[in-house]
Amino acid sequence: MKVGEINTPALLVDSNVFTENISHMSAARPGTSLRPHVKAFKSSYLAKELVAAGHENFCCATIREMEGMAAAGLGKDLLLANQTLNSERLKKLIDGGSARVTVAVDSEETIQAAKIGGVSEVLIDVDVGMPRCGCHPNEAGELAEKARAVGLNVRGVMGYEGHLMHQKDQQKRDMGMARSIKKLETAHAEVGGEVISGGGTGTWESNNLVTELQAGSYVLMDTEYARQDLPFQQGLFLLTTVISVSGRGHAVLDGGLKALAMDSGPPSLVGKGEIMYCADEHTGITGNSWKVGNRVLLRPAHIDPTISKHEVMHLVEKVSETDDSPVIDTWPIDLRGW
Amino acid sequence: MKVGEINTPALLVDSNVFTENISHMSAARPGTSLRPHVKAFKSSYLAKELVAAGHENFCCATIREMEGMAAAGLGKDLLLANQTLNSERLKKLIDGGSARVTVAVDSEETIQAAKIGGVSEVLIDVDVGMPRCGCHPNEAGELAEKARAVGLNVRGVMGYEGHLMHQKDQQKRDMGMARSIKKLETAHAEVGGEVISGGGTGTWESNNLVTELQAGSYVLMDTEYARQDLPFQQGLFLLTTVISVSGRGHAVLDGGLKALAMDSGPPSLVGKGEIMYCADEHTGITGNSWKVGNRVLLRPAHIDPTISKHEVMHLVEKVSETDDSPVIDTWPIDLRGW
Repeated sequence: MKVGEINTPALLVDSNVFTENISHMSAARPGTSLRPHVKAFKSSYLAKELVAAGHENFCCATIREMEGMAAAGLGKDLLLANQTLNSERLKKLIDGGSARVTVAVDSEETIQAAKIGGVSEVLIDVDVGMPRCGCHPNEAGELAEKARAVGLNVRGVMGYEGHLMHQKDQQKRDMGMARSIKKLETAHAEVGGEVISGGGTGTWESNNLVTELQAGSYVLMDTEYARQDLPFQQGLFLLTTVISVSGRGHAVLDGGLKALAMDSGPPSLVGKGEIMYCADEHTGITGNSWKVGNRVLLRPAHIDPTISKHEVMHLVEKVSETDDSPVIDTWPIDLRGW
Repeated sequence: MKVGEINTPALLVDSNVFTENISHMSAARPGTSLRPHVKAFKSSYLAKELVAAGHENFCCATIREMEGMAAAGLGKDLLLANQTLNSERLKKLIDGGSARVTVAVDSEETIQAAKIGGVSEVLIDVDVGMPRCGCHPNEAGELAEKARAVGLNVRGVMGYEGHLMHQKDQQKRDMGMARSIKKLETAHAEVGGEVISGGGTGTWESNNLVTELQAGSYVLMDTEYARQDLPFQQGLFLLTTVISVSGRGHAVLDGGLKALAMDSGPPSLVGKGEIMYCADEHTGITGNSWKVGNRVLLRPAHIDPTISKHEVMHLVEKVSETDDSPVIDTWPIDLRGW
């Protein structure tokens, strides 16, 4: 299949950009010093490319992602970097026998759920500044004791400084980073274990505490991340078709907000012109001359929730407006849903 | 299965509200005077409930929706209320023989695509004020001639006054409505045919020109529509579980922006408390006391793109925070994707 034959709207991955992003990160964080986060791309097929680059351990945000990675034969060392109370599905996953499963815990309830689910390894999830999951750093040691008391092996700690990922001010980022690192260090000193897991694309270079970096977005990059001074490029595009051209000066594309996440703003148009609006199944564009049938590329603002709206991504050598090269591969987005 | 046994995050439909919404609309627009738009709910299973209420003709926004409705045995009279250039899939759909297919056209290219695809019936799509698809009202007659010249049966016109759907100012809505209706009337006078298709939930009462109303959102309602003075109630909820409670005063739910469309803003919390943020797989809430394991309901701001993120919706008699009644039915969301 050639790019011109793809039914639109459809996601395209630029293979050159993708490969360079992976290489760049692998040089800094080889092997298990990177634990790629599959939540960014929700595809075990894409994950296999990371395995080929030497990264065999993965982070997941949902049990569905854990189940899918195990089913795809990528269960060597899977971390559910999130809390769950679903002992039943943990148990099924563990009984399946095809994955080493570690889960994050931050409460007695989640420790209990892990125990009942037959999980044997956990990380203590620590709040390092972002108001999400994680216990207070001072409570981490006590939680670890509770986990060990019920027979769980505490591999170490986890802390995600999500509040710093998009901090563009270097000084503020450095100060925040120092505080977060101190919290995670404090917790780790109490908890013990060999794993300190955390960080992400935005702090890939500044987080030098973690023994494994939980980055995922770097493989295809967001618009928000692209505004920062990072060495990774945007490699994901929505391919659309002009289905209507108005005498009023606008054209209409056949992909809209059901195909593009809008939480970080509208997509950007590749080439001349501007986005007018995104509706359910349409994007209105203006500021150029288009003809019905033209193909137009959009750059999604936020890749994680954009990818999770689609069934597949098509890998092409180099994405451009006029590209009609062969599709190298089509990756099912098999880890979406819950 | 009981509500308490549902894996979260998950969509719940309040059966009482759903039934009342359908009854109310059916009383005003019985049978084929309503052509429900499946884009709102993307489920042939839900669509069957509308058939049971007397509505056998449907609108679709994508070829995938058309294909799915035909496959589900609901192909009595399907309108693709959108432009397409995909002759190949139109041809497969028509050759399948299980649907009467009408498509909207607004250009020579879309007429040509319909012809090549073996479509025999079209509507002329007219721009009635919203900058989306549709030809100028003055060009509708000429387009109809071109369609007839290649052997297509022109059933009539279609025009969607989407720019007025959320207009809360009665006077502005009335003035806009008068202008839109005049445009569609003008076009229809030139085009002929017995069908005048258009309108939606927001103009369900004021659009008295259309022979068939293209409403879909009314069945479960959006927050945006709910702010207007409409007789339909919100019947869709995201059921979530509290997976973490912080000493800082917030709790974290296991559903976030991958489970909720954010284009019309964040969801609202059912019960006491406030939404702090939605992240990919989490929603932070504050202003109440929650315990790990509590179930919390969210009302999505925009139902169409929220539903299209999920695999199923669960029908329950009456959705409430403490509800643990049996699940009446589970509807697959089988029409999503492209």
